[in-house]
Amino acid sequence: MNPQLDEAIRQRGKAFFASIRGESPSIFNKGFWTGKVMDWAMQNEAFKVQLFRFVDVLPYLTTGDNLSRHIEEYFAGGEAGDIPAVLKWGAEKSGLFGGVAAKLMGKAIRSNIEGMARQFIVGETTREAVKNLGKIRKDGFAFTVDLLGEATVSEGESDAYRDGYLEVLAAIEAEQAHWKPFGAGTDDLDWGSAPRVNASIKPSALYSQARPMDFEGSVEGILARMRPVYRKIMAMGGALCIDMEQLKYKAITIELFKRLRADPEFRDYPHLSIVLQAYLRETEHDLRELISWGRAEGLPFGLRLVKGAYWDSETVVAKQMGWPTPTWTRKPESDMAHEKLARLILENSDLVYFQCASHNIRTIANVMETAAELGVPDNRFEFQALYGMAEPVRKGLLKVAGRVRLYCPYGELLPGMAYLVRRLLENTANESFLRQSFAEGAAEDLLLENPAATLARELAAHPPRPKAEPATLDGLTAFRDEPLADFTIAELRTAFPAAIAALHHKAGQTLPLVIGGQALETADRLPTVNPADPTEILAQVCQAGMAEVNQALAAAEAAFADWRDKTPRQRADVLLKAAAIARRDIVALAATQVLEVGKQWDQAYNDVGEAIDFLEYYAREAVRLGTPRRMGREPGEKNHLFYEPKGVCAVIAPWNFPLAIACGMTAAAIVTGNTVVFKPSGLAALVGYGLVTIFQEAGLPAGVFNFCPGRGSVIGDYLIEHPAVSTIAFTGSMEVGLRIQEKAAKVHPGQRYCKRVIAEMGGKNALIIDDDADLDEAIIGVVYSAFGFQGQKCSACSRVIVVDAMYERFVARLTEACASLAIGPAEDPTNAMGPVVDAAGQAKVREYAALARQEGDVLLERQIEGPGFYAPLVVVAGIRPEHRLAQEEVFGPILSVMRAASFDEAIAWANSTPFALTGGVYSRSPKHLDKARREFRVGNLYLNRNCVGAMVGRQPFGGSKMSGVGSKSGGPDYLLQFMEPRVVTENTIRRGFTPIDADDEWVE
Amino acid sequence: MNPQLDEAIRQRGKAFFASIRGESPSIFNKGFWTGKVMDWAMQNEAFKVQLFRFVDVLPYLTTGDNLSRHIEEYFAGGEAGDIPAVLKWGAEKSGLFGGVAAKLMGKAIRSNIEGMARQFIVGETTREAVKNLGKIRKDGFAFTVDLLGEATVSEGESDAYRDGYLEVLAAIEAEQAHWKPFGAGTDDLDWGSAPRVNASIKPSALYSQARPMDFEGSVEGILARMRPVYRKIMAMGGALCIDMEQLKYKAITIELFKRLRADPEFRDYPHLSIVLQAYLRETEHDLRELISWGRAEGLPFGLRLVKGAYWDSETVVAKQMGWPTPTWTRKPESDMAHEKLARLILENSDLVYFQCASHNIRTIANVMETAAELGVPDNRFEFQALYGMAEPVRKGLLKVAGRVRLYCPYGELLPGMAYLVRRLLENTANESFLRQSFAEGAAEDLLLENPAATLARELAAHPPRPKAEPATLDGLTAFRDEPLADFTIAELRTAFPAAIAALHHKAGQTLPLVIGGQALETADRLPTVNPADPTEILAQVCQAGMAEVNQALAAAEAAFADWRDKTPRQRADVLLKAAAIARRDIVALAATQVLEVGKQWDQAYNDVGEAIDFLEYYAREAVRLGTPRRMGREPGEKNHLFYEPKGVCAVIAPWNFPLAIACGMTAAAIVTGNTVVFKPSGLAALVGYGLVTIFQEAGLPAGVFNFCPGRGSVIGDYLIEHPAVSTIAFTGSMEVGLRIQEKAAKVHPGQRYCKRVIAEMGGKNALIIDDDADLDEAIIGVVYSAFGFQGQKCSACSRVIVVDAMYERFVARLTEACASLAIGPAEDPTNAMGPVVDAAGQAKVREYAALARQEGDVLLERQIEGPGFYAPLVVVAGIRPEHRLAQEEVFGPILSVMRAASFDEAIAWANSTPFALTGGVYSRSPKHLDKARREFRVGNLYLNRNCVGAMVGRQPFGGSKMSGVGSKSGGPDYLLQFMEPRVVTENTIRRGFTPIDADDEWVE
Repeated sequence: MNPQLDEAIRQRGKAFFASIRGESPSIFNKGFWTGKVMDWAMQNEAFKVQLFRFVDVLPYLTTGDNLSRHIEEYFAGGEAGDIPAVLKWGAEKSGLFGGVAAKLMGKAIRSNIEGMARQFIVGETTREAVKNLGKIRKDGFAFTVDLLGEATVSEGESDAYRDGYLEVLAAIEAEQAHWKPFGAGTDDLDWGSAPRVNASIKPSALYSQARPMDFEGSVEGILARMRPVYRKIMAMGGALCIDMEQLKYKAITIELFKRLRADPEFRDYPHLSIVLQAYLRETEHDLRELISWGRAEGLPFGLRLVKGAYWDSETVVAKQMGWPTPTWTRKPESDMAHEKLARLILENSDLVYFQCASHNIRTIANVMETAAELGVPDNRFEFQALYGMAEPVRKGLLKVAGRVRLYCPYGELLPGMAYLVRRLLENTANESFLRQSFAEGAAEDLLLENPAATLARELAAHPPRPKAEPATLDGLTAFRDEPLADFTIAELRTAFPAAIAALHHKAGQTLPLVIGGQALETADRLPTVNPADPTEILAQVCQAGMAEVNQALAAAEAAFADWRDKTPRQRADVLLKAAAIARRDIVALAATQVLEVGKQWDQAYNDVGEAIDFLEYYAREAVRLGTPRRMGREPGEKNHLFYEPKGVCAVIAPWNFPLAIACGMTAAAIVTGNTVVFKPSGLAALVGYGLVTIFQEAGLPAGVFNFCPGRGSVIGDYLIEHPAVSTIAFTGSMEVGLRIQEKAAKVHPGQRYCKRVIAEMGGKNALIIDDDADLDEAIIGVVYSAFGFQGQKCSACSRVIVVDAMYERFVARLTEACASLAIGPAEDPTNAMGPVVDAAGQAKVREYAALARQEGDVLLERQIEGPGFYAPLVVVAGIRPEHRLAQEEVFGPILSVMRAASFDEAIAWANSTPFALTGGVYSRSPKHLDKARREFRVGNLYLNRNCVGAMVGRQPFGGSKMSGVGSKSGGPDYLLQFMEPRVVTENTIRRGFTPIDADDEWVE
Repeated sequence: MNPQLDEAIRQRGKAFFASIRGESPSIFNKGFWTGKVMDWAMQNEAFKVQLFRFVDVLPYLTTGDNLSRHIEEYFAGGEAGDIPAVLKWGAEKSGLFGGVAAKLMGKAIRSNIEGMARQFIVGETTREAVKNLGKIRKDGFAFTVDLLGEATVSEGESDAYRDGYLEVLAAIEAEQAHWKPFGAGTDDLDWGSAPRVNASIKPSALYSQARPMDFEGSVEGILARMRPVYRKIMAMGGALCIDMEQLKYKAITIELFKRLRADPEFRDYPHLSIVLQAYLRETEHDLRELISWGRAEGLPFGLRLVKGAYWDSETVVAKQMGWPTPTWTRKPESDMAHEKLARLILENSDLVYFQCASHNIRTIANVMETAAELGVPDNRFEFQALYGMAEPVRKGLLKVAGRVRLYCPYGELLPGMAYLVRRLLENTANESFLRQSFAEGAAEDLLLENPAATLARELAAHPPRPKAEPATLDGLTAFRDEPLADFTIAELRTAFPAAIAALHHKAGQTLPLVIGGQALETADRLPTVNPADPTEILAQVCQAGMAEVNQALAAAEAAFADWRDKTPRQRADVLLKAAAIARRDIVALAATQVLEVGKQWDQAYNDVGEAIDFLEYYAREAVRLGTPRRMGREPGEKNHLFYEPKGVCAVIAPWNFPLAIACGMTAAAIVTGNTVVFKPSGLAALVGYGLVTIFQEAGLPAGVFNFCPGRGSVIGDYLIEHPAVSTIAFTGSMEVGLRIQEKAAKVHPGQRYCKRVIAEMGGKNALIIDDDADLDEAIIGVVYSAFGFQGQKCSACSRVIVVDAMYERFVARLTEACASLAIGPAEDPTNAMGPVVDAAGQAKVREYAALARQEGDVLLERQIEGPGFYAPLVVVAGIRPEHRLAQEEVFGPILSVMRAASFDEAIAWANSTPFALTGGVYSRSPKHLDKARREFRVGNLYLNRNCVGAMVGRQPFGGSKMSGVGSKSGGPDYLLQFMEPRVVTENTIRRGFTPIDADDEWVE
């Protein structure tokens, strides 16, 4: 930046500060409760966490008891066991807390917090909002109105959201005439350029099914409800700004903005804006692309540039998903980006009407001075601030620039609280300009410093830690999960249809057995078909008989000694190669699942990702466990504990996670030095065959992995009872699992080992909805857990247990949400649900659907016709613990809804089945969450999230009771099951002479 | 010390040094191979280890091939893969290595090392020895002759050792007349006081069965062979010095010295000496006690004071056994002790004839000056040095003091090598006076410094590390094994007979069931008897029927929830209390085993020790595993892996480790939060009842541990198949174990968990004797492993596989050793072996004894008559892998001897049974040891030691194949078997707000 400009900016900033000297945002005013509490929160991170969480849950606390209980749970955890004094502050004065009972105090706290929320909201009703908008205009500020909304989880809710806009617009329309335009008003425009009516709208709320994977569906789904709103605005001569939300909606939002702007109906009406977020690394690219598009189309547009309000969640989500951090990670970087982007916009002010939304005086001053330097006319840019925040800044802005628009949310307090949390975060973040300026009184020079200089200072003081991964054992980097599917990437969205088309093309191939590295065709064949169109035979699969099982076992036995005698690292390297191959071929491998078992794109992709995770994780685990551990430190004695393989492992795989689970069991067996006879599910033999090609290319020696599909009725028991088998790794139904266990327990002549059976079996998993659950999240979590991949997961939610007080609200929204799901072939990413895997599954689900009608009250049953194996989606209420629908695994899209009198009863019911696999709780009560942690006894318990999709290494997976025997897959104990421990003890004393080693425990 | 004396000592020392200026012990002479090699060894610790180990094995390398192979294995391990140049040094000059083949080089190295050994030995034959003793006297030195000997492992060998002394004395007798006494000889005494003939003798070699536990038997056993030797010496007018060996023989040696000295036959003959070691902390006490005794008895005696030659092994052994370090740990402390003890002796010079044995000039000077100060007459003390060592010192001594005696070992090179290793260690130790003086040329001032000052300097430079144990989880100290039985402690030796007597007194008591904390008597009773005298009924044991099993299971189920909900630390604390109780009652608990199952004192004591170990170890393990582990470090997500109990565990215990194994299985189950129904073996119900009293006193809640003895035929299957049982922990025979496994695999109605069976079963364990095995150790190890507790251990050695070249030598010594064992009631510590546990065991052993006569050549069969269940001790040779005696577990004192053509064949045979529990190898070939490590596939492999007595935490115990299923007891994976893993995942993001924790992986 040229030094003159920088100096001008700083001078401008100083003048700005001078003009507001002595003023402070009301939220920091320590004379009031809010200011006191904010002050305490900024000093005390733990209190801040509790406070913001409490604000979040507050609207759900509809009874006094509930409120007192939560205040106690959130704030009385300390040693004193007492509520922090700051929360009670002012009680004596106000009389609210005098000799106060808990309930009274609760009411006071609620009232104070609701007061905080109201400060940021222009009104709770349309009437109040419109009245206040008028007042705002009287104060000289323009507005943009925004309707607060819960996340929309159903199409009904999206309709309501659209209707809410239409309602407020109608109300404003009636008032509009009374509002005089600001400045040299021509054409009823403020400042000669901006419509008096301005609305901002969140696109994702307009289509409950919007998601990156269904890009086209999402764009059109949103537009369908946005058009009437925009039409109305156009009719009123107003302006619309399409808000930018989380990154996952960015591409969709840009696309729908373009379509709406270029729509013949609206193309001649210029008052449409979009928002870009300076904190995203991609934004410069997006901006340039938008400008080019606008120029090419000849379409001027408005652009609000913000710093971005989702930094915390964007960075956290990216970390969780394994994606690169999408944002700048240091605050000055975002500030720098804003300055750079602002210049770019101002340079294109003929095309782009600039809306600078920031409370940062340096940022504002930069825009003013840059506009001045570039000679941008005043009516080509305006400033925006949030209603209720940064009052001194907006006041200063009004003085200096004149053109200030306030962003004015209105709506109910419930969604208002979510908005409040975001605003509190913004005000109290360590790096907040407002906090630094007004709460901490930082030096103006620093506040007005060029962010590039600030960054340089910060980097000097806290240099970034070196990026090199800490090496773990044997030079391997630490394990990381494969990134989850990211359908914001356009290339991935287009790769799927191409891969699926290629598979259709190949349909009908013959799959041989592969034994000892040799393909072997048998006469007995079984087709594997597309469940969405069973006439499409994907492959004819050769079936093994007993003779072939013998051959496979012999090949595995023959390969054993050499494989066993490789080092753990050598075996691990084969897995790592296999992982790299699967990573390269991930879309093709996922597409196979889409066609063969009807799995949705994202879940198919993540299944392959999980297979890669197993390869990567077990490779490292094998090296870790393969390193002998010294036991004891006594001198003269060396004890080493280590593990070695047993021999031949039979891997019997399911069809529902057809690559991940097959690969996990197989990888565990082979990386520990065993050899494998692999029997894939007949319903997923084509996916299973993928392992053959992956391992072959990875250089696994012939005979270590033998592909041996066959009919369970013909070869199942034979394989299990065979004396050559030492370990059986099985995933499937409880019935088959228990049979395997029983058969394998008998020792047959010639058998070397007592067989180890590792069996992952069924589940009857419950999600509990507490009376303070965040319903926006709970509905989405339940729907995904219950109906993702048609409920055909051992982890799937098949019971939802709702605490009485929440029941009606939850069930109503849930039913609507389920009714909103698109059902159809998994090939089409629009569909959230597809056919079940085969006719037997279909028949079973239909039986349970009939049972649902007997045992309970069916709230929803969606029958899908078509050539595929479609099974009804059923939501059935009135289920009690003794019902079969509360006890038996269905393995399909049937969800039992149970109404529990209390959280304790919900836990008891949740535990009341023969299974103990997964489960979950949506609750914001710390005590209830703790109780669940202790007493909701399932293998994998999830708090405040869905109960499926366990990640290798992070959520080792598996249950107990009749859900499984064995240690959790993807966890630190899993590989032990495939090995025998050995200890070698050496006496190192010879003739009294004992070399003493560094790690010996020695005298003194 | 008074400064004048100290100054006089230093002046005396300086004069001493001056008198030998320029001289050096031959071993450090770098002009020769030995000096060169010593120099290299002192610079290179790894080479030193290999060199000394090679010297140790050298006499066993009787073929050129074997020799070359070992040279290669010991020395060619480095990167160069070549033999170190130093070993080849001088080859060109000597012509020995010119263009040399491996065999030739081997011969040269052997010849050089044998030369080293000869330097320290006065002769290999009696004739040579006597001749050289004469030469020594010609040089002005007196001598004491010592017969080198292998460890004696049988009474025949002890006889031979005694005879060796008689032979050399006879030979000396013939020469004695030609030797003129030194000094003013009167009565043919040297220096007017010392007999010309002087012999030193190692007492332990005179009785092959000597051991601290059998104190009286050891004293008398040794005296029986020492008396004729001393008688002969007295007849010759000579003197005898009883050498002091390892600490374990000290009390025995002092006692036998006193008895011999006070024996009416010898009481009037004063020329008997004993040795004390200054490095032992106890020595001052021993010395004062001996002086009091001498004064009380009016018996003057001789006393050789040495620093002590077993420092390395005493400290190492103490660490391994868990005993306090018996020695001073810093060299100057031993030097200080020598000075203090020397003054004490010299103060009593009227009673004690002082023999100062040291090569340390400071030590010598101290004795001279202290004697002068005290006015001790010259003929009341003499100096001693080792033949072949420290030549300058002995020369200087001769000049200064005149009275110098050389300690002269003679005998074959094979035992000579062991002696050589000790001498090399002494010469090359970092703190060796000789090394510092002559190899490193340390300053005389430092060498002559008062050791108290040296110590102060050392402590200042290297202060002792703080003694505080590093705290582990939850404030618990690190686990340590209970100290093993130490029968050098007189109180322990006397406690056993008292405890046993008390038990005899209580015989006939009734043992009730204990269910839910209540004693319950049933009508059906079974006696438990003393196997050494089956007419002695120790107790009448109430037997449970199915009704009582149901009661016990109900009590266990009722107690479960409360116990489960305790914290791991609370449960661990109960175990730690139980451990303290068992520790307090250890002798009484051990005595019960002596009587009820016929276990020898030491093994019974160590069995209780192991029970304590299990309590202490599992307590800590439970806390470790009870601490939830965070999985993954992604922000916004908390995944914790932890474990929880399942319910009721059936513990079915064996009689052979009646407390340890019962306690281990029980402790594991309860500390993890399960409750237990415990069925002890009917043969060890009294021992099993010990757990009831221990746990009751420790405060275990009622119902957590239920004592439920019963007939297997009545309640066995019922208990195993019961749906209330979730885990079965069993130790016993393969037949029963496999039956349990099969029965438990079937799921019965009402059953919550697939039952986990943890079964430790049988073994058919082999020890391999390689062609270079150290036989002294191998024989002792095999005998103890095969016949300790009558072979009734699953870990017992029941096959010894001997490599052909070693066969004859090994088998001859083994058979003699077995013939030397005393057999009789375990009450009497003389007996190394007792009766088997019952008539059935007796009958089974007899059957296998008969089979031995059919399948092999019985080398030894010892039939013991008596009222007890004595079974024959059998050593049978000619057993081949296909014989039943090579395949079937006998569980009694029958040892099969197998002759293998090679080490490889030995390994193959060792692996050829259905079992894989323990095994061992005696070998000094690094390659063979490595091969065994890899390919001798048993659960617990022991190199160069016996194969029994695995220590908790150090040697986690358990096998595979038909020896067991489950993880090793006493190891880090064991407790996992009693628990189910759970993972709780919490999504900590609320409204995008995510508290970031310190251990989160965060941006940048």
